[in-house]
Amino acid sequence: MLKEQLEKVRGQMPLIHNITNYVTVNDCANILLACGGSPIMADDLEEAEEITAVCGGLNINIGTLNHNTIPSMLAAGKKANACGHPVLLDPVGAGASRLRTETARRPLKEVHFTAIRGNISEIKTLALGMGGAKGVDADGIDAVTDANLESTILFAGRFAEDTGAIVAITGAIDIVTDGDFACVIRNGHPLMSKVTGTGCMLSAMMTAYLTANQEQPLEAAAAAVCAMGLAGERAYQRLSAKEGNASYRSKIIDEIFLMDGKILEEGARLCKYRLQKQENGTSEKIICTEVPHEM
Amino acid sequence: MLKEQLEKVRGQMPLIHNITNYVTVNDCANILLACGGSPIMADDLEEAEEITAVCGGLNINIGTLNHNTIPSMLAAGKKANACGHPVLLDPVGAGASRLRTETARRPLKEVHFTAIRGNISEIKTLALGMGGAKGVDADGIDAVTDANLESTILFAGRFAEDTGAIVAITGAIDIVTDGDFACVIRNGHPLMSKVTGTGCMLSAMMTAYLTANQEQPLEAAAAAVCAMGLAGERAYQRLSAKEGNASYRSKIIDEIFLMDGKILEEGARLCKYRLQKQENGTSEKIICTEVPHEM
Amino acid sequence: MLKEQLEKVRGQMPLIHNITNYVTVNDCANILLACGGSPIMADDLEEAEEITAVCGGLNINIGTLNHNTIPSMLAAGKKANACGHPVLLDPVGAGASRLRTETARRPLKEVHFTAIRGNISEIKTLALGMGGAKGVDADGIDAVTDANLESTILFAGRFAEDTGAIVAITGAIDIVTDGDFACVIRNGHPLMSKVTGTGCMLSAMMTAYLTANQEQPLEAAAAAVCAMGLAGERAYQRLSAKEGNASYRSKIIDEIFLMDGKILEEGARLCKYRLQKQENGTSEKIICTEVPHEM
Repeated sequence: MLKEQLEKVRGQMPLIHNITNYVTVNDCANILLACGGSPIMADDLEEAEEITAVCGGLNINIGTLNHNTIPSMLAAGKKANACGHPVLLDPVGAGASRLRTETARRPLKEVHFTAIRGNISEIKTLALGMGGAKGVDADGIDAVTDANLESTILFAGRFAEDTGAIVAITGAIDIVTDGDFACVIRNGHPLMSKVTGTGCMLSAMMTAYLTANQEQPLEAAAAAVCAMGLAGERAYQRLSAKEGNASYRSKIIDEIFLMDGKILEEGARLCKYRLQKQENGTSEKIICTEVPHEM
Repeated sequence: MLKEQLEKVRGQMPLIHNITNYVTVNDCANILLACGGSPIMADDLEEAEEITAVCGGLNINIGTLNHNTIPSMLAAGKKANACGHPVLLDPVGAGASRLRTETARRPLKEVHFTAIRGNISEIKTLALGMGGAKGVDADGIDAVTDANLESTILFAGRFAEDTGAIVAITGAIDIVTDGDFACVIRNGHPLMSKVTGTGCMLSAMMTAYLTANQEQPLEAAAAAVCAMGLAGERAYQRLSAKEGNASYRSKIIDEIFLMDGKILEEGARLCKYRLQKQENGTSEKIICTEVPHEM
Repeated sequence: MLKEQLEKVRGQMPLIHNITNYVTVNDCANILLACGGSPIMADDLEEAEEITAVCGGLNINIGTLNHNTIPSMLAAGKKANACGHPVLLDPVGAGASRLRTETARRPLKEVHFTAIRGNISEIKTLALGMGGAKGVDADGIDAVTDANLESTILFAGRFAEDTGAIVAITGAIDIVTDGDFACVIRNGHPLMSKVTGTGCMLSAMMTAYLTANQEQPLEAAAAAVCAMGLAGERAYQRLSAKEGNASYRSKIIDEIFLMDGKILEEGARLCKYRLQKQENGTSEKIICTEVPHEM
C-alpha cells in the first residue's frame, strides 16, 4: 500500500503550512516540493490561522520556538482542527528546556494532533514529562533497540491511545503506531544523524502524506517514514568517498524527488504488528502479534 | 545590451540590503555573491534604515513577514527612497492572507519602488486587490499563456504606469515592463518550480542588477530575468537522471556564478514590445508592436 | 598538535548552543555535525540560559540580531561564564550599524569571551570603536597583508590582552592570538569569500574546538582556523570548471566532515610567533619572534 500513499501525494500536491524552525526550514520546503507537496511558511499570529485555513495540512515544529511563534502554533493548531485538516507536532528538543517541554505538552491539551513525530527522548518527554534529551538529539540511554523494542512499541501505543494521534518515534529503528497497530521500520542509514534536519524534513513530508491520505493516517505516516529512510539508504549508495554530510543532505532530498511507488515498495523494510490488550480489566500488559507484511 | 548589465554588476559589486524571509535567505545571499553583488541581511527596526543607507540597493521580500519586520520594511523603503537607492518589492504570497496583501499594498502608497517582481497571482493581488494565489505559488487559472499574453502585458504596463515601477511578472513566460516597453522572456525550465526560492533569488539578483544599472532599470530587470531563466536551463542540462531538485538548486546558483555576458546574450530569449496607447482620450486600448530585439 | 585538537572534538562530540543569524544557520549546524560536534539553536530569552547550561559551549553571532535576541545573547553569555563554558563572539557586521557596534561591544563589558572571531574591520570596530566595515565584509583598506602583518598582530595581541579572549582575525591571512603568542595561518582560498557564511561556520566550529580543548584555547582556535582554510583549499581542488559557489559551499562542509588529524597536520600552513613587550615600563612596542612550528 505504500505505493498508493506516495502516489496520492504526487497526485494531490497538498499545500502544507509549516510553522517551523529557521535552521532547517529551507530543507523542509525543498523536501515538500520533492515529494510532491507544496510548502508555505507563515508564523505571525496575525496570519497563522488564515494561512492554515487555505492549506491542506499543518506542520508544527518547535525547533526554534519563541514567544512570538508559540501563540501562532496554538492558534494555527486549533484552526486546523476546526477545518478538519491534519496537523502534526514535531517536539524538537522537548526535554532540553522547560519552555520546549511546556510548549510541546501544552498543545496536546488544546489541539488534537493527527500525528506526533519525534525521537525517543522527545516522545518520552511528551508522554511522561521527562526524557533523556541531549540537546535536540535523543539520548543514547533512550535508544530503541531490539532488546527494548516490544516495550517501546507498547509505550508508543499507549501514548497514541492517550492522544488519539499517530505516534512516530524515529531513530535507528522507527516505530509508527495508532495504538491498535504498530509499524516497525528498519530503513535509513546512520549517516543521516550527521545531517541537520532529517527529522524536521520527515515531519514536513509526513504532513503532506497525512494530508493526501486522510482515511489512512497510520499507513500515510509509515509510508513517509519508509520513504525518508529509503532515501537515506539510496543517497548513501550514491555518496562517493570524497563526499560528506553536505553532499549527503542534497542527495537525500534528490532521492525523495526521484522516488516512485515501485522504488518505495521494493525498498521498504516494514513489519506490522497488532497491539493486543490483555483481557483483564486493569492490566497494562499488551501482546505484540506480528501481522503479515500487508502494506 | 544584456552583457553590459551583467558586467556592471560584476564590476561594481553592489552591496544589497535584504529584508527577506528565513526560508530562502541563504540562497538569496549565495546568488547575490554568485552574480557579483554582496549581501547584507538586517531586519530590526533599530538598524534597518542605517543599513539601507550604507548599501546600494534594497530588496524587500515579505515571504515570512511578521509584526517586527513589517515596520522595518517600511522604514527601510522610505530611507532607500530618500537616498535615491533602487528598491524592489517581492510580494511573496500576496493574496494568501490579508496580512500579506495589506503588507504588500501599503508600501505602494508610501514607498516608490524601482521594481516589483512576483508571480501573476501576486501581481494581480497588488494591482487589483484580488488574485488567485495558491499559497506562495500562482494559481493555474492566472497563468500567463500565449493566449492571454497581450492582455497580460497591457495589465502589467498599466500597473507599471500606476506605480512608476518596473513590473516583472515571472512564470513560464516572463513579462518585464516599465509601461512604455515590455520584454517578454522565454527562458527557464519547469523544474525551477520544484526548487524553493527561485523567485526570491531572482528578486535579490534583480536588485543587484538595478543597483548597478540605475540609468536603465527596464534593461537591468530584464537582464536579471534572462540570467535566472538561462541559469535554470543550463543547470538542467547538467542535471543527471540520478539527481533531483536539491542538486538542481545548487546548479542554478552555480550557473549564475559561471555566467558571463557572452553566455547571457547568446542564451537569452527575449522579445521587446512597445506599448502604444490609442490616440483617443479615455480609451484603455493599447496596441503591442514588436520591437526588433535590440537588447 | 592540531591533530589532537581535532580528535578531541570527534571524541567528545561537544554540544554547542548557537544564538546565530538565520542566513547561515543551516550551514553552521551542518559544519558542527561535520567536525564532530552537535548543534542546538535557541534564541528565546525564556530558554536561552537553560539551553546554554545543558550545552558544552556557546556561539554568539550577531549576523541578524534583533531586539528579541540581543537580551538572549547577553543572558546566555553570562550563564556560560557562570557554568565555566567556552563562549565565542562573532561580531558580524560590527561597524555597519550603531546597533551592531553596540551589541558587539556591550557584552565585552558583561561577558568574558573565550574567543572573538571576526574579519579585520569587525575586530577594529570592537577594539577601537571604528573600522572600515563594508556591510558584513571587511573593507579593503583594512586588509591584513604582509606589509601590515606585524602591526596587525600587535594590535590583535593588545586586544586579546584587554579582553582576556583569544582574538582570531580571519581573511586572506589569519591571525589567532592570546596576547602572548600569535599564530599566523595561510590556509584558505579566495573563492571562500563568494560563499556566504564561511566566517559564521568557522565560528561555530571554533566553539566546538574550544569546548573540546579547554586547556588549550589558543591551539584549539588555531586548529579550527587551519581546518576551515584547508577545507577551502581541498574543496577547491575538487571543484570542476562547471561548478560555482553553491557547489563549493557543500564541498567545504564535506571536507570538514572528511578531515582527520593527519590531513590537518599535513595541510596546515601555520607559523607561531611570540609577542614580546619591550622591557621599558610604558612602551607599547612589541617584538615578534618567530617560534619553530611546534604545533
